[in-house]
Amino acid sequence: MSEELASGPKESPPAPRPGPREVWKKGGRLLSVLLAVNVLLLACTLISGGAFNKVAVYDTDVFALLTTMMLLAALWTLFYLLRTARCPDAVPYRDAHAGPIWLRGGLVLFGICTLVMDVFKTGYYSSFFECQSAIKILYPLIQAVFVIIQTYFLWVSAKDCIHAHLDLTRCGLMFTLTTHLAIWMAAVVDESVHQAHSYSSLHSNTSHSRLALDPERAGSQDGGGFCSCNTALCQIFQQGYFYLYPFNIEYSLFASTMLYVMWKNVGRLLPSTHGHGHGHGHSLTRVSLFRETFFAGPILGLILFVVGLAVFIIYEVQVSGEGARKRQALVIYYSFNIICLGLMTLVSLSGSVIYRFDRRAMDHHKNPTRTLDVALLMGAALGQYAISYYSIVAVVVGLPRDLLGGLNLAHALLMIAQHTFQNVFIIESLHRGPPGAEPYDAAPKEPCHGLTFANLDALHTLPACPPTPRLDGPSPADPQEAVAVILAPRGHWRRRCLKDISLFLLLCNVILWIMPAFGARPHFSNTLEVDFYGYSLWAAIVNICLPFGIFYRMHAVSSLLEVYVLS
Amino acid sequence: MSEELASGPKESPPAPRPGPREVWKKGGRLLSVLLAVNVLLLACTLISGGAFNKVAVYDTDVFALLTTMMLLAALWTLFYLLRTARCPDAVPYRDAHAGPIWLRGGLVLFGICTLVMDVFKTGYYSSFFECQSAIKILYPLIQAVFVIIQTYFLWVSAKDCIHAHLDLTRCGLMFTLTTHLAIWMAAVVDESVHQAHSYSSLHSNTSHSRLALDPERAGSQDGGGFCSCNTALCQIFQQGYFYLYPFNIEYSLFASTMLYVMWKNVGRLLPSTHGHGHGHGHSLTRVSLFRETFFAGPILGLILFVVGLAVFIIYEVQVSGEGARKRQALVIYYSFNIICLGLMTLVSLSGSVIYRFDRRAMDHHKNPTRTLDVALLMGAALGQYAISYYSIVAVVVGLPRDLLGGLNLAHALLMIAQHTFQNVFIIESLHRGPPGAEPYDAAPKEPCHGLTFANLDALHTLPACPPTPRLDGPSPADPQEAVAVILAPRGHWRRRCLKDISLFLLLCNVILWIMPAFGARPHFSNTLEVDFYGYSLWAAIVNICLPFGIFYRMHAVSSLLEVYVLS
Repeated sequence: MSEELASGPKESPPAPRPGPREVWKKGGRLLSVLLAVNVLLLACTLISGGAFNKVAVYDTDVFALLTTMMLLAALWTLFYLLRTARCPDAVPYRDAHAGPIWLRGGLVLFGICTLVMDVFKTGYYSSFFECQSAIKILYPLIQAVFVIIQTYFLWVSAKDCIHAHLDLTRCGLMFTLTTHLAIWMAAVVDESVHQAHSYSSLHSNTSHSRLALDPERAGSQDGGGFCSCNTALCQIFQQGYFYLYPFNIEYSLFASTMLYVMWKNVGRLLPSTHGHGHGHGHSLTRVSLFRETFFAGPILGLILFVVGLAVFIIYEVQVSGEGARKRQALVIYYSFNIICLGLMTLVSLSGSVIYRFDRRAMDHHKNPTRTLDVALLMGAALGQYAISYYSIVAVVVGLPRDLLGGLNLAHALLMIAQHTFQNVFIIESLHRGPPGAEPYDAAPKEPCHGLTFANLDALHTLPACPPTPRLDGPSPADPQEAVAVILAPRGHWRRRCLKDISLFLLLCNVILWIMPAFGARPHFSNTLEVDFYGYSLWAAIVNICLPFGIFYRMHAVSSLLEVYVLS
Repeated sequence: MSEELASGPKESPPAPRPGPREVWKKGGRLLSVLLAVNVLLLACTLISGGAFNKVAVYDTDVFALLTTMMLLAALWTLFYLLRTARCPDAVPYRDAHAGPIWLRGGLVLFGICTLVMDVFKTGYYSSFFECQSAIKILYPLIQAVFVIIQTYFLWVSAKDCIHAHLDLTRCGLMFTLTTHLAIWMAAVVDESVHQAHSYSSLHSNTSHSRLALDPERAGSQDGGGFCSCNTALCQIFQQGYFYLYPFNIEYSLFASTMLYVMWKNVGRLLPSTHGHGHGHGHSLTRVSLFRETFFAGPILGLILFVVGLAVFIIYEVQVSGEGARKRQALVIYYSFNIICLGLMTLVSLSGSVIYRFDRRAMDHHKNPTRTLDVALLMGAALGQYAISYYSIVAVVVGLPRDLLGGLNLAHALLMIAQHTFQNVFIIESLHRGPPGAEPYDAAPKEPCHGLTFANLDALHTLPACPPTPRLDGPSPADPQEAVAVILAPRGHWRRRCLKDISLFLLLCNVILWIMPAFGARPHFSNTLEVDFYGYSLWAAIVNICLPFGIFYRMHAVSSLLEVYVLS
């Protein structure tokens, strides 16, 4: 939204091919944002109401709403696909930055996992078909269809800059985005309720049932007494679908970011050189994957990854025990995290130091995908920041004088440092020009798109003339040239270091994603904060903030992959 | 943040006067945002921890933190003022859009009220000096000094585009902004606790004490048994400072928006024509205030304002009664609101319809102040949207079949409609060019800043050449010309209608601000939602969302004043 004003002047020259230019782009955007906000708030109200057992909103209401939204979004998507297939003039440009291959690949991967989850869910609810409302079985089936349509749609159309039915397309995209966000919210809330339920059944303390299901309701969810989930198959289905939730959550978020970029690109005009470029340059370097590193980064990262997996399994096994075993599990968990976060902080810092010697120019060009990436990295980090600050206050004010308190404090502090320095490193990397490009000041002032000026000062008074003639792609226009530029400085130690650093950080982020995404909750096992804030406040903080923290890891992985390929 | 990328190319020509151009503006911004986020989260943690009585964080901790922050921010402000006074080269440009007179006037007004509040607070805490920690008396005194320095600073410097010590200035501005936001949070939390306290003492129901003070704590706040607030003077001080809170809250928000615009303008380059322009054109039209309306808008608005005040007083007197009286108060309150909101919706809609016949061009130029205005209007409306959706769900699912339920539903629906249509009207108004400007397509293609092109197509290929030569001010360069342009189509009915509409909406927004800001809480008096969601959930929703709703009204007033002057 805020970028719109600045982009106004940029779009002012009339388009070469499409019809008359839009009078006021912001008006169309406003309309679609208003639609999205209203639908999202309605969904949010129902979902949050459904999560609290005292409120007379039932999960069938939520399922009904989500199913309706998915059907509508799927219909619109089909309509969009049909229309663009019939009239190729509707998409005159394609944004080379949008929908990079790793994002689309991740989407397909998570989409497949979501389909498996839907099978499990259908199986689970079919086990006691008689005492369920039909919507609970319908919901995973519709979701499966929706995921298939969406994955195909985003694979094919993620790069489109569409120029037909602008307002309708914006509203359709925003509605689909809202649907994904609503599904994400529902999944997160469902997982939190499940977590709280298992926590309160572990502690069998009824005073902690604020976010938990009460026995009646849990009974009615499982189908009541005579049709509860007793068979082995049903148990497997139930366990399975809870373990597949993280993938569904990530799928929704990936799809949302891609839809947002598509929405930003509606009606956008790009210089038509290689208009249909499919991220050229990137795919060419993938042949020589890993050849250009010192191997230190990937190897150290892999070691940490394997150790982390082992620590995670030990933690999960031991933490449900009592007293000393639980304490040992927490000490192991925190120690590993402290070492991992410390190393990541140092490595990110050294990456930033390397950039101080880097002579590549900064890339100032407009790029909605990158802007979104940066905003998401900064925004999603807030979740983990908030949890860490609450932990710090609890430890500092509560003054526990034991090992766990100290470990918790160190963990929280390092978490803040690691997020900060990693964000600085990634954001700086994303803004570097392509390798081999001359620094800005040394570049000769080229005339602006073939215009020549007798007086160079005249160029400076030009309001928004970019310093280089290439408008919207960091890679040069000609693919052959691109390869030459990218491969030329291959042996340089700086590039190799940066590739090592990005791979190391990537692997660390994967393991730090796996732990919370698959259920490690030291926040509750470690009773420090629960005692300090009380269960309900601390559960609210963690359940709201942790999903963002988990999304941060996933998003950092995709950004680091981009850094690896581009550096 | 997101606007940065787009503005990159714009800043590429080297500045005429200031030193070497910044290599990467986003880097400096990143640094200051990271600082602000961390400080704000720490403050947020302490403030929210202090609000819950079960948590061992005391309000003295919060006061100590806020006092330290205010001292640091005041020191930086003094440093900034000294530096810019000594070296006038540091501010080569001034943004004519930033800090308009009504914003600065509002700031001074709210600043004076905050000073009065500080006097009351000091008097209140001095009444039982012996049993208070010193920080509680120090806090209002430091706040008074801080407010005086800040008001002077913002009055003098709101338009600055500073070009010296860029990173330090950004960090300083962000830190000051964070301080204001922290004060705002503390005030909002304090008011919510007060409200919850009076609610629970009214209902004397201990199960509702989640957000309220427990008796012990309240006792210790009032100084314990032997030094409680018994004297008449002390009571007056206590009542007085709670009624002045809304002004303090608005002061912090006004200052924050102005600081944000200053932060966006750090290092910004503007064309130096009339670089020191003080919002020329606007001040000149104020002579003929009210002369150009049909008087219908202001008169109808004033009637509603006076009736609203009467309704508010009746409501406040009657709502604390029992049964029928309380019911009557709620019916009167809702009826007035429904009429007022309905009229506002119709009027906003007719304003949008008038724009369909308007031939003025849309203004696409970059303008951080306007971008912020739009974002704040949209963002702050979310608060009221959320409350309304929760009300709607409660009424629709809870199915109360009485008059109050129906009124509540109509009120919630109209609230959503009113916010939506008013936002559309205001945002469209803010994007209209100055009156008398020709529509876009009819304007002759003027050459870009004195350059001439033989081939007009060359102009179209220019990436970001704005359609008109005036870069960053909708009013023409020459003040005399501006007056001529603004006064020329004086008699036109469309302009008059728009002025009427904006004045009517302005007055309605003022009365709708006064009601919640000075303590009307039908959300709790009307027991529908409390019964449906439970007290703690509903209190959390209202206490988080209502401050945004109140801020929306205030911000809409300042935007409507701008619409009135510009249309």
